Amino acid sequence: MASADIGLIGLAVMGSNLALNIAENGYTIAVHNRTASKIDDFVAMAKQQGLDQKVVPEADLVQFIQAVKRPRSIIIMVKAGKPVDEMIEQLLPHLEAGDAILECGNSLYTDSQRRYEYLKSKNIGFLGIGVSGGEEGARHGPSIMVGGPEQQWKNAQPILEAISAKFNGEPCCAYLGEGGAGHFVKMIHNGIEYGDMQMIAETYGVMRDGLGMNPAAAAKVFKDWNQGPLNSYLIEITGYVLEAIEPRTGKPLVELILDKAGQKGTGTWTAIAAQQLAVPATAIEGAVAARSISSRKEERVAAEAAYGKPSAGKADVSLDDLEQALLAGKIVSYAQGFAVLSKASEEFGWNLPLATIAKIWRAGCIIRSRFLDQMSAAYAKGGATNLLMVPDFVTIMQDAHKSLRKIVAAGAIGEFPLICLSASLAYFDSYRQAQGTANLTQGQRDFFGAHGFILTDREGEQHGKWPSTLGK
Amino acid sequence: MASADIGLIGLAVMGSNLALNIAENGYTIAVHNRTASKIDDFVAMAKQQGLDQKVVPEADLVQFIQAVKRPRSIIIMVKAGKPVDEMIEQLLPHLEAGDAILECGNSLYTDSQRRYEYLKSKNIGFLGIGVSGGEEGARHGPSIMVGGPEQQWKNAQPILEAISAKFNGEPCCAYLGEGGAGHFVKMIHNGIEYGDMQMIAETYGVMRDGLGMNPAAAAKVFKDWNQGPLNSYLIEITGYVLEAIEPRTGKPLVELILDKAGQKGTGTWTAIAAQQLAVPATAIEGAVAARSISSRKEERVAAEAAYGKPSAGKADVSLDDLEQALLAGKIVSYAQGFAVLSKASEEFGWNLPLATIAKIWRAGCIIRSRFLDQMSAAYAKGGATNLLMVPDFVTIMQDAHKSLRKIVAAGAIGEFPLICLSASLAYFDSYRQAQGTANLTQGQRDFFGAHGFILTDREGEQHGKWPSTLGK
Repeated sequence: MASADIGLIGLAVMGSNLALNIAENGYTIAVHNRTASKIDDFVAMAKQQGLDQKVVPEADLVQFIQAVKRPRSIIIMVKAGKPVDEMIEQLLPHLEAGDAILECGNSLYTDSQRRYEYLKSKNIGFLGIGVSGGEEGARHGPSIMVGGPEQQWKNAQPILEAISAKFNGEPCCAYLGEGGAGHFVKMIHNGIEYGDMQMIAETYGVMRDGLGMNPAAAAKVFKDWNQGPLNSYLIEITGYVLEAIEPRTGKPLVELILDKAGQKGTGTWTAIAAQQLAVPATAIEGAVAARSISSRKEERVAAEAAYGKPSAGKADVSLDDLEQALLAGKIVSYAQGFAVLSKASEEFGWNLPLATIAKIWRAGCIIRSRFLDQMSAAYAKGGATNLLMVPDFVTIMQDAHKSLRKIVAAGAIGEFPLICLSASLAYFDSYRQAQGTANLTQGQRDFFGAHGFILTDREGEQHGKWPSTLGK
Repeated sequence: MASADIGLIGLAVMGSNLALNIAENGYTIAVHNRTASKIDDFVAMAKQQGLDQKVVPEADLVQFIQAVKRPRSIIIMVKAGKPVDEMIEQLLPHLEAGDAILECGNSLYTDSQRRYEYLKSKNIGFLGIGVSGGEEGARHGPSIMVGGPEQQWKNAQPILEAISAKFNGEPCCAYLGEGGAGHFVKMIHNGIEYGDMQMIAETYGVMRDGLGMNPAAAAKVFKDWNQGPLNSYLIEITGYVLEAIEPRTGKPLVELILDKAGQKGTGTWTAIAAQQLAVPATAIEGAVAARSISSRKEERVAAEAAYGKPSAGKADVSLDDLEQALLAGKIVSYAQGFAVLSKASEEFGWNLPLATIAKIWRAGCIIRSRFLDQMSAAYAKGGATNLLMVPDFVTIMQDAHKSLRKIVAAGAIGEFPLICLSASLAYFDSYRQAQGTANLTQGQRDFFGAHGFILTDREGEQHGKWPSTLGK
């Protein structure tokens, strides 16, 4: 009776594509959906692709569960939030000890942590799995980030590795740690993606407003950059977006798109997690802020009327500097993201493998890049926690920060908003300064709150003898 | 038997000082403390100050409660968190309908919101009250931010107004809204304080590293600035901190203080609340990040060794530009803080009075300043939600942003970390740019995730026809 290697519930686009991917890799998959007609649609689609022999459709939930070989791995791919909890409750009475629920939606890691604990108490494994790469990735090879109990990971490992993207033959799929580790890493992936996209937008702004380039010329630059150290999916598609022509008008499409960015919230999640862990992630915060400000179009129009159009003075910068600045900004943003991972690993006892995380992001996901190949190699050598201190990246950054300076200075004078690139530079400059200015801050804190300070030449907390400011 | 106008529990420094302040203003106050010896200490201190006639000490909690006239106002000033909840539970059985607990600790606003709801269900009023101004403020006049039920505020209003700081005779105390409104506003006060302090530290860094000034020379500049538009408590004490001499060595104290800043978490709270409300607060986030990076001294020393000492090239900037840059940065930071208030007011239905908030911060609290007097006057005229659009501030900012540009550019080239000032400039430039670069972002989001975009010349969501990037 139990003939399927794995089960999947939720046949919307992402679920259907994952199921087809699994079938295509030779595994028999039982599928179920609350609306039964979606099951028929899916079977028709599988048939079209010659994959229906590998599909066991089951409109009845209990029969669906029984169709899966034990110990069972059951993927649920429903809307994040309450629907996930409801589905878990529906499944629970019919699962047996050692079975596993593989939750592959876009869930907040704290929810995965909670579900993991809850199901552990019932002897059921809960795997919270981040799947990156959108619809196309789900169908042809996503990057897969797994968190949860190790035993149930091992049960599902062959299937998950088979369906994942490959980089030089290596699967972009890994077990990262207990509980919410998989969804946490996926969240940081998205935060980094926000940073990458915003810094690309800022360099496009410099080209457009500072160098007077049209979209076609800018597209050419991004295509060139895609041959160099910035080689990545996002740089590649930037070239395509910039060269696209709107067919009705024959104008560059990008110039007709309204400049209000949407967001689904994972950037905000990253920023909140970073704050909760007390790890500075200013580049990612800057990217979230930029989207938010962009969405206030009416306020921006009013502000420009009040302050006058930006001067948009010709920027005295080269495209080489711009490329290096983007690279430098990217290094800082990844340094921040990985510092958050590192702290979370400590805090939650996950033992996150940083080199492996960089590895499984090299293909399948939105931030896939040559850069991540270098990063995984550098982290594999061990040592530094902050990417800015990893020897290979120190070498790159030693030159690149100089270009970042030129661009940030040109942006400040030329009135181009560089919210993310300037945050990256400021982080770098704060981080590489042995003697900062927090001595003044500590003096102030002692003055008004008696918080105390340490003197560099003696032990123990000290206080200053401050004058009274009463009545002033 | 009930002879006291108000009661207070918790006789540590802040509680004692508040109680003395109340007694000095002619009100009879019942006091209680878990450790009874602290009550004796307090009575002795009150006697010394000639205030013991106004004090009703009660070592027994029930007798303490009965010593307060009905409807009772009982201040609790214990450690934030669990001790507050425990104290509430101890008080509850002995309170009567219409009585109120006035919680004056450093509580997170969501805790105050929860306690307010809980006590409402028991017919007891819970006032969550932010008290700013440190120990000296508590004793001689703090800024007092009240949230909770209006009726119980009215019962306590004469006392709270009497003990508060005064600005031109007006009490720096106000009722701000239901539930957690008072503690929310206090939290934003602290976030803004972080920004102010960090931007002062950054200008000090430019003086020290870019202009080669010693602490005495820098102190003189801050004293000058305190006569102008930057006039404020924090600028005033910066002058004192910079001119202080460490007695053992005869050296400037500030140069001996270790540059690792502490923090108590309210800046982080502000950053998280801003993220949750989706309001950009990059200057405040920058200030929190700067403290966090400062605390990683060992990492910074290692990073400087890897990248070499900052160039610290002579900065080609004037002290006038530096003053104007600090003013511009301050306007942006306050704009962000007040934008968070404005959104929270909407979100939580508090109807926060922004002009009043600026008013009650003019004296008693750490960020008190001439600037806040201008702000309250400007907001009282009504209109704009973002400070950057308030006419009087547009006028200041129209000049000041030019200086901020010069300083940020000089910092970028000169390798001074300006984490907060550069965040302020980038926010301003993003906010005042009618045509941004999020059109590219939206094109990318549609490319990889089919998220859609709006075209400026037609209605409805559109999608691009994108090439496949499969196998690339």
